[in-house]
Amino acid sequence: MLPYPLHWTERLAIKTDSRILFVVLDGVGDVPINGETPLSAANTPNLDALARDASLGLSTPVAPGVAPGSGPGHLALFGYDPLHYEVGRGVLSALGIGLDLSPNQVAARGNFATLAPDGTIADRRAGRIPTDLNKRLIALLQDAIPSIEDVQVNLYTEAEYRFVLVLTGDGLGGRVADTDPGRTGEPPRPAQATTQDPRDQKTARIIQQFVEKATHVLHEADIVKEYDPAPNTVLIRGVDTKPNLPPFQQVYKLTPGAIASYPMYRGVARLVGMETPPADWSGSGERTETKLKLLREHGDKYDFIFFHVKKTDSYGEDGNFEMKKKQIEDFDAILPDLLAWKPDVVLITGDHSTPVGVKAHSWHPLPVLIYGPHVRRDGRRFTEMDARGGSLGTLRHLDLMPLVLANALKMKKFGA
Amino acid sequence: MLPYPLHWTERLAIKTDSRILFVVLDGVGDVPINGETPLSAANTPNLDALARDASLGLSTPVAPGVAPGSGPGHLALFGYDPLHYEVGRGVLSALGIGLDLSPNQVAARGNFATLAPDGTIADRRAGRIPTDLNKRLIALLQDAIPSIEDVQVNLYTEAEYRFVLVLTGDGLGGRVADTDPGRTGEPPRPAQATTQDPRDQKTARIIQQFVEKATHVLHEADIVKEYDPAPNTVLIRGVDTKPNLPPFQQVYKLTPGAIASYPMYRGVARLVGMETPPADWSGSGERTETKLKLLREHGDKYDFIFFHVKKTDSYGEDGNFEMKKKQIEDFDAILPDLLAWKPDVVLITGDHSTPVGVKAHSWHPLPVLIYGPHVRRDGRRFTEMDARGGSLGTLRHLDLMPLVLANALKMKKFGA
Repeated sequence: MLPYPLHWTERLAIKTDSRILFVVLDGVGDVPINGETPLSAANTPNLDALARDASLGLSTPVAPGVAPGSGPGHLALFGYDPLHYEVGRGVLSALGIGLDLSPNQVAARGNFATLAPDGTIADRRAGRIPTDLNKRLIALLQDAIPSIEDVQVNLYTEAEYRFVLVLTGDGLGGRVADTDPGRTGEPPRPAQATTQDPRDQKTARIIQQFVEKATHVLHEADIVKEYDPAPNTVLIRGVDTKPNLPPFQQVYKLTPGAIASYPMYRGVARLVGMETPPADWSGSGERTETKLKLLREHGDKYDFIFFHVKKTDSYGEDGNFEMKKKQIEDFDAILPDLLAWKPDVVLITGDHSTPVGVKAHSWHPLPVLIYGPHVRRDGRRFTEMDARGGSLGTLRHLDLMPLVLANALKMKKFGA
Repeated sequence: MLPYPLHWTERLAIKTDSRILFVVLDGVGDVPINGETPLSAANTPNLDALARDASLGLSTPVAPGVAPGSGPGHLALFGYDPLHYEVGRGVLSALGIGLDLSPNQVAARGNFATLAPDGTIADRRAGRIPTDLNKRLIALLQDAIPSIEDVQVNLYTEAEYRFVLVLTGDGLGGRVADTDPGRTGEPPRPAQATTQDPRDQKTARIIQQFVEKATHVLHEADIVKEYDPAPNTVLIRGVDTKPNLPPFQQVYKLTPGAIASYPMYRGVARLVGMETPPADWSGSGERTETKLKLLREHGDKYDFIFFHVKKTDSYGEDGNFEMKKKQIEDFDAILPDLLAWKPDVVLITGDHSTPVGVKAHSWHPLPVLIYGPHVRRDGRRFTEMDARGGSLGTLRHLDLMPLVLANALKMKKFGA
């Protein structure tokens, strides 16, 4: 049996014409500073109008006290218990750059990093090297290390200091610990399997060899020496195989499309069966015009749209209250464009809180808003404080998909 | 181990003299129209007085987004996880007309229906034939089909187009899909077991023969030809055997009595071990005087009374705001009679919401009120809006039995 709530929705969900808009403002939840959060301080006339006629609540992403990464946060939003379906960041990154992993592949996230002469990590991101240099280093490494033992090695630039490592071969497992110690001043960790399974042991052995060979190649490369801090080693994390998730089409009877400018979010969306209509994602930032164009041109193919806004999280991580507030106001300005898709039900929330005072993903429950023809209208604003005691009460992210399906009259009655 | 919350209460519940009144206003929850729900618009001085001194909260019947049928809704209220204890409608209907099923029996719900000349269902209820005609058709079928193979066939009129089929014999299983396709314009489905178990296969075979024989008998009957749409076939649904539920006496240490005018609710009450004191239930509607007479004459036998009010749901299904409001006011008028039983603890809620705007059972959480000597007094009214943010917070129906037991000081401390 599928875990909650997938077992419900697989039984009860029905296909109808109604449309669901599912908006994720990444990291939007916050903690008041002098009584205000970015959400409460922002000037959001469009969001206010929607919220007034919507039901509000507070939703805990995974469990009280747990600050989720982007992967678990979004899986929970999409109704996939992240404790049941654990997905390595490497897999999310691989999917995000458009790779479709097969069962004999293992993916990992790589960082170009700086090793100090004493063997400790001096910079986990090698000064956030430019993407162009990343591409040149990847070409160098790919040329030098096409394979290890009987395993094919493929390397892909993600952005800045980040790359993706994909191993292809027989008998590879995904349970290998990060070589990234997570902080500077410590040496990189050896690649170690977290189980006794020979498949995991094999992957660990290959990754360890890869790290050693790559460090050797980078050490010899003239191009590396020009930079300070020098990208003279690699750190590996988030090793995993692609999980087998029951798709949205099967469990929710939806035809879902995802609109997100950042690869990670398109990746997690594809993992649950969403289509990611093609666009020119070159450039950086929110790329709002590209996203709105996608919605206008491809929206009618779908009855469920996941629309992702990234920068609310980024400025939370930077501890920048004013810029986080500004991102919310920017979102407010495009809300009418989203509503022009004519959804029957709208959900707005975030994957997790990223309070400017914490400067990191946090455990705080987030405001959630559900708008539709059958909601109790709370007459409030979409803020952390107003969401307390709203009609939706206190929820988990896992509850949200059944709720939006029900509000769109896409769930039949359970039992007689 | 029993599922939550039965495992708690079986360990912790103790027998005392205190009395619990458990009132279910069927389908009472609603969604505001122009800011008002039937509960908020109703003039309810007695309920208001009780609510002022009670704790309020919002309770989700089964899970967010799930609209339960009457069976699962009531099982959840009584603390029996409806996912763990799934009960077919046939069993509920059989218990509701006073049958006590034994382990070698299978019950199903039947509809008299109209088959078009092309073999599709033209009317799933044969124009809702009168109960008198139902009784004559049942006599005809019972006479013509006393048994099939080694299985005894018993037929009982429920009301209008509905009847109950009970099969008695060895080796009968309960897992057979409905022959009712659930919509017109499609042919009836063949009776099919949903497992490979020979017991389920046998039941499916017997039901298929019953449907064929009954259709033949009805086709030949002069009485059927007089009606348009003609009740010329039968549809079977909700096939099941009686589930084995641990009774209230065992898990809650209660002596429970149920007072409900509609058979279905007496049926589900008996399923969990409640007594249903005998009364003359002839006639229709709420039969309030009969219910109050039962309470006066039999109330002292019990320390737990389940009191059911049906019409709040019926008028929700009809989309009739004013009449739903009126049912709530009628209930308010008899609340003093209920309190005359001198309960120590009173719970009032519904099994599910039936919003007049949805005209069907819905997923919306309902207001719940607990009154007793040890509650936090919220000073509010019993409405969907006032229940937001009440002292009880947001709950599931499964949480309610332990809460009323605790408020009645019928739960000992857990652990030392």
